Amino acid sequence: MRDVYVAGIGSTTFGKHAGRSIESLAVDASAKAMVESGIDRARIGAVYLGNFISGPLNGKEVLAGLVAEQLGLQGIPCTKVEGACASGGIAMRHACLMVASGMCDAVLVVGVETMTHASTPEVTSALNCAMDNEYDGLSGLTFPGLFGLAWRAHAQRYGTTREDIASVVIKNKAYGLKNPLAQMGADLSIEQVCASAMIADPLQLFDCCPPSDGAAALLVCTKELLPANSNKPRVRVMASVQTSGSARISNHPDLCSFDATVLAAQQAYKQSGLQPAGIDLVELHDCFSIAEIIDSEDLGLVPRGEGGRWAAQGRTGMQGDVVINPSGGLLAKGHPVGATGVGQMVEVVLQLRGEHANQVANAGIGMTHNLGGTGVACTVHILGRDA
Amino acid sequence: MRDVYVAGIGSTTFGKHAGRSIESLAVDASAKAMVESGIDRARIGAVYLGNFISGPLNGKEVLAGLVAEQLGLQGIPCTKVEGACASGGIAMRHACLMVASGMCDAVLVVGVETMTHASTPEVTSALNCAMDNEYDGLSGLTFPGLFGLAWRAHAQRYGTTREDIASVVIKNKAYGLKNPLAQMGADLSIEQVCASAMIADPLQLFDCCPPSDGAAALLVCTKELLPANSNKPRVRVMASVQTSGSARISNHPDLCSFDATVLAAQQAYKQSGLQPAGIDLVELHDCFSIAEIIDSEDLGLVPRGEGGRWAAQGRTGMQGDVVINPSGGLLAKGHPVGATGVGQMVEVVLQLRGEHANQVANAGIGMTHNLGGTGVACTVHILGRDA
Repeated sequence: MRDVYVAGIGSTTFGKHAGRSIESLAVDASAKAMVESGIDRARIGAVYLGNFISGPLNGKEVLAGLVAEQLGLQGIPCTKVEGACASGGIAMRHACLMVASGMCDAVLVVGVETMTHASTPEVTSALNCAMDNEYDGLSGLTFPGLFGLAWRAHAQRYGTTREDIASVVIKNKAYGLKNPLAQMGADLSIEQVCASAMIADPLQLFDCCPPSDGAAALLVCTKELLPANSNKPRVRVMASVQTSGSARISNHPDLCSFDATVLAAQQAYKQSGLQPAGIDLVELHDCFSIAEIIDSEDLGLVPRGEGGRWAAQGRTGMQGDVVINPSGGLLAKGHPVGATGVGQMVEVVLQLRGEHANQVANAGIGMTHNLGGTGVACTVHILGRDA
Repeated sequence: MRDVYVAGIGSTTFGKHAGRSIESLAVDASAKAMVESGIDRARIGAVYLGNFISGPLNGKEVLAGLVAEQLGLQGIPCTKVEGACASGGIAMRHACLMVASGMCDAVLVVGVETMTHASTPEVTSALNCAMDNEYDGLSGLTFPGLFGLAWRAHAQRYGTTREDIASVVIKNKAYGLKNPLAQMGADLSIEQVCASAMIADPLQLFDCCPPSDGAAALLVCTKELLPANSNKPRVRVMASVQTSGSARISNHPDLCSFDATVLAAQQAYKQSGLQPAGIDLVELHDCFSIAEIIDSEDLGLVPRGEGGRWAAQGRTGMQGDVVINPSGGLLAKGHPVGATGVGQMVEVVLQLRGEHANQVANAGIGMTHNLGGTGVACTVHILGRDA
């Protein structure tokens, strides 16, 4: 397999893009990535587009082909991939596979979603497309309900407190405030987090990521295709992993862990030859505050059960043992579902180039973690700066 | 790249499956393919699921993971791919790529759709997700409208008649009558076809494929994984191609041809080292009767402009120059959108094994052609029987 590099990145802001079509956002992000890469359009051999719910919310499919046409990419295979909230990460993995296997020398990967035009019931209903509605659907459970249950289980087993979890919110909202791509940064106190509206007990408003519009894109390619005259550090894909887990909450052996994440992390460490201690920063899937704690443990970055305390002690912040979600994460940067996994890559690339608004000192290795549905799909990527 | 073989096939009937969940149909077809293959479940390295509109019509996504779980496939990458009506073919291509590149030794590919539970306006609206609704949508055009326009253009330029086109319908409906998987076979006269209800002038009712429920599946693998003790002929993938074309009808240079098909056919002939004359039979994308004529010309199987006359002269029937749609095609077998491209593979495999209800004599090489939307996505596969 050939080495895969990131030659260009592009992103819209995450937030509200009223009146913009979903394909126009994807085109904007993609065009930025293509221009930045400096790679001739004719070298691009495929397009992978991650999107989750454009069908239900926009009445639009075949987005990959629609977007490619508007970018002047003709005749090449254009594929939408879907795995709920992991759709963007799955798009990235397929782009990497095409380059690594020799099928293509350069591939455009783009993730996109628009959600803010839809009503809350419409968005909730569309997001629940990621559940096993034949089984779990009968329970009436939504995703806030699921993560509320996970919180209760984590609190009971490990003693994780409301205040521990609030510190995740405060950290991510503060990072979001400085990230120009982020939707909902804020300077919050523990009191404010704990006073916010109850959503799905014990989850409160600030514990939940917002619905968002946005797109993010990357141009991945072989080492040979990287522009020779660039003064930017070279960013290489050291691991690209996709796994699956149970779609049925009733089949999950443990509410405090997602099998798909644990497996993906194991495979990613093996592929890269790295250990958790080698990861300088991670952009992980904090769709809810408690998810960041569970994910950090599942990824092996924090000891099992210690996620809440590490967050409260600042060990997952900028001066901590491992920096988690310096972008602000889904909680503050936003969660345009299909774009999220690709947006995480953009954030990590900015860090590895030393160009991030919340720059992690000496960031050489970054991880991304994108989780779909009830843990039914997961991707983990590790990116590294070439020496 | 490694050779890719088809180790097992499975399919539900295409038609109405009232009360069945979409995932249960996919599980049925997949289980048949897995059992027939004789390959240990643990060797299956990935699942690709083709589906178009389960989001809008069923409120369900993450189908790949849902189906894999019910098949006892754990932890492996499970991906839904979407490219409108070409979703099934795209799933097949990705399965082939994974095996050919060495990423996996065996991959499950399944296509599925359910449509008959929805109302006609709901189905029409969902199918129009495959159009460029920002541009062409403003014209009010639906897919019958598009193919009605193509018919008019073909008639004007090449002199193709209502009776020529009726002979496509009569042929496919007759084949469908004998195909146990088919939804709507019929013994029709030219008079009956020409007397059927007008849908989108000049397209009449029998010129249109029906909405359908159904699933089809294949297990593809390396040569080494093929069961050594099988008495069935070995079926090898000789070409697997995916292309794209304009999503905007207003950008199509010619209503009588789809660029994506022409390009895919060229690449498939090159990959396989075959010429059109080497193809014994083809399952092509006759979503409307006129589409079979255009596709047969785009694939190089019939001289440009002669599609209607060849059909009328029986040159595309069982005793003809090339046998087109011996399954009954979309017109008679049905068109459960995401399943169609995989169902075409099942039909060709049955032909190459000599097991088809409408067996083509000495069938050694078969082609499939799966076209999405306005020609925005296309796949062409060529399968051959090992000597």
